[in-house]
Amino acid sequence: MNKPLKIAVAGLGTVGAGTIQLLREQMAVLEARAGRAFAVTAVSARDRNRDRGVSFDGMHWYDDAVAMADGADVDVVVELIGGSDGVAKAVCETAIARGRHVVTANKALLAHHGAELARAAEAQGVTLAFEAAVAGGIPIIKALREGLAANRIRQVVGILNGTCNYILTQMRETGREFAEVLAEAQGLGYAEADPSFDVDGIDAAHKLSILASLAFNSPVDFGAVHVEGIRQVSALDIDYARELGYRIKLLGIARMTEAGLEQRVHPCMVPLASPIATVDGVFNAVIVEGDYVGRSVYEGRGAGAGPTASAVVADLLDIAAGRRVPTFGVPADKLMRVPTSTMDRHRGAYYLRLMVLDRPGVFADIAAALRDEEVSMEAVLQRGRAPGGTVPVVMTVHDTEEARMMRAVRRMNDLDAVVEPVCVIRIEAL
Amino acid sequence: MNKPLKIAVAGLGTVGAGTIQLLREQMAVLEARAGRAFAVTAVSARDRNRDRGVSFDGMHWYDDAVAMADGADVDVVVELIGGSDGVAKAVCETAIARGRHVVTANKALLAHHGAELARAAEAQGVTLAFEAAVAGGIPIIKALREGLAANRIRQVVGILNGTCNYILTQMRETGREFAEVLAEAQGLGYAEADPSFDVDGIDAAHKLSILASLAFNSPVDFGAVHVEGIRQVSALDIDYARELGYRIKLLGIARMTEAGLEQRVHPCMVPLASPIATVDGVFNAVIVEGDYVGRSVYEGRGAGAGPTASAVVADLLDIAAGRRVPTFGVPADKLMRVPTSTMDRHRGAYYLRLMVLDRPGVFADIAAALRDEEVSMEAVLQRGRAPGGTVPVVMTVHDTEEARMMRAVRRMNDLDAVVEPVCVIRIEAL
Repeated sequence: MNKPLKIAVAGLGTVGAGTIQLLREQMAVLEARAGRAFAVTAVSARDRNRDRGVSFDGMHWYDDAVAMADGADVDVVVELIGGSDGVAKAVCETAIARGRHVVTANKALLAHHGAELARAAEAQGVTLAFEAAVAGGIPIIKALREGLAANRIRQVVGILNGTCNYILTQMRETGREFAEVLAEAQGLGYAEADPSFDVDGIDAAHKLSILASLAFNSPVDFGAVHVEGIRQVSALDIDYARELGYRIKLLGIARMTEAGLEQRVHPCMVPLASPIATVDGVFNAVIVEGDYVGRSVYEGRGAGAGPTASAVVADLLDIAAGRRVPTFGVPADKLMRVPTSTMDRHRGAYYLRLMVLDRPGVFADIAAALRDEEVSMEAVLQRGRAPGGTVPVVMTVHDTEEARMMRAVRRMNDLDAVVEPVCVIRIEAL
Repeated sequence: MNKPLKIAVAGLGTVGAGTIQLLREQMAVLEARAGRAFAVTAVSARDRNRDRGVSFDGMHWYDDAVAMADGADVDVVVELIGGSDGVAKAVCETAIARGRHVVTANKALLAHHGAELARAAEAQGVTLAFEAAVAGGIPIIKALREGLAANRIRQVVGILNGTCNYILTQMRETGREFAEVLAEAQGLGYAEADPSFDVDGIDAAHKLSILASLAFNSPVDFGAVHVEGIRQVSALDIDYARELGYRIKLLGIARMTEAGLEQRVHPCMVPLASPIATVDGVFNAVIVEGDYVGRSVYEGRGAGAGPTASAVVADLLDIAAGRRVPTFGVPADKLMRVPTSTMDRHRGAYYLRLMVLDRPGVFADIAAALRDEEVSMEAVLQRGRAPGGTVPVVMTVHDTEEARMMRAVRRMNDLDAVVEPVCVIRIEAL
């Protein structure tokens, strides 16, 4: 039997404690799988006295995680602190510089500094592993980097943020508005006190940029992701989506188009028959399309102590067994910038909801705005009448270029009879 | 750059040709991923003159695949001949004995000889890889063996045979009977001239036994799989399934129960809300439940040249990069026989369809048969009346032990008024 893999864990929240518990509980089978034992020999967190439900007996306690990464006698540092910079980044950089492998669940860090950390790890000959950073309950990093590695990927599409998916699911099931459901989710611990990372799409964009790097062998480019969140999604739109045969999901989409690589996170209308339309609540799902494999779909829990610990330990198993994969699938110097497309050049179908004064001639003006941009209507819904009052007019339009769509929408917004900004939701025919 | 990985391909059907084509087309990215080139230097098939759509220039042609496995100067032999014994087995055994890695898509071979081949490969220090053997379009072997390897698995459930899923989907969509849809599927090339491997559940059982070995760290035990096919599924039952909110799927299920490991393949009624109920046509899907990760679901094409080639090349990439995993997740000597349960001891819900003479008192006799076995009815459907004629009576019953259920069914079959054997379909609340 080889020597045990010595592990330091930085950050002892639920995931850190869960990881230590998992390693302890499944020790025998993990040893059999890796051909060696696992030993957590050092841990670090700010508050030494908090009860975390697991024992740290026999582990060296560090108050300073960077000091641990620097000085602990370990093979691997597991970084579970979080945040794109600061301590988390210093822990990873220090561990790599000292020749230790790094396992992290930190999507923000990878989204902002993934390519440079990969280069550093490669230069030191150590592994930087991050299965837990995206959809902990789905081994999607391994699937993209190894299982589907023979394919040229056409697109990766995912429900990547459990909080948003939970909120949208609740809105649909209860008919309530975003703010009310968010407040409830915060009470239940499904959303943070400051929810903006989640509900503004940033967390999903972090994850998407990581998946895009793996799928397209390009350096992580978080700045290239177009990001919109779900604050603007209304109960009314969810209702219309149902009527039109769609579900509204916050999707992250990385797609190779003729205009270049699109990376975008925004609410989408997805046909009910799509395999991810019915992935509800805190679950995540990812669709991958490759040239040989065709379409494959993955679904599982997005976060939580158990799934995230499962992903962290899968990475530890690979390290313990000596299995090495380049951080983003190919060596860092082979990651090539690909041409990026802009949202202006996006082509797709759209859902539009206009709140209009119910008076003659309004629809003609709207239709003219579309006609002049050569945007072709697919369906129109108008429920009820309110002569002299305001009514919603909903329409879907066929595939068109976003620049045209937005010009038409601006013209609509300028109409006197359009009393609030047109709600625009992209339709994805997945 | 390291030396190229030298590959021999045994069997040049669509998958063999697809594999060679893929290696050629994606050469650059595969080299970047593996850190070395791939060179198919030898091939073998029976008919040298058939046009396979790819060039074999520069490859050594063998008429005898075993001679190739024995004598070709290669690192890996890819076995795509098929069949549980005979040439395929000899090719794999010979390659292993000669210290060559083996990549195979052969589920029958692994189901019957997996454990012994794993021992041989381990003794020789070579890899035996088989991602392509189960659901080629889903990297499920890697997911179970590596991605979810930190979990104790509770169950693995899958739609594992594309032909059966295609037939059941067509039956549902067109209302036609099995025989007619099968004939059409044969015409379209979706079913073999001799369809029994597929429609009698054997192929699915092969795959299930492989997944069970990976999930439960036990030697492949094909003999322990209870197997039923789809020949008995009627259009009437598909119709009733719809009415009751179910879909009929041929599932492979490996589940750890209190009575031991259940392994079974048979038609199931699956609630429409289940993530695999709507996986239709030739697609496969697998649900894995682990103690830390919870439920994860995988969906993709089951077979075909592209997906299977994608899986074969994923295995070649692992070999080229020097990534080693024990064949069934743990070393062969750590594969432990687990207690197996029998169908008698299975617990679950059931759908029953009886064709009964429409006369007073029949239902009382049926109800008595259930009562005496303590089987509790959930719902009863009777459509229409035919006084003096035959009518279907459909019922669902709550969870019960299969032995009890079958005793009750035997009693029903003995009733004069029950004019054909009761149709029994297990309900799986996935």
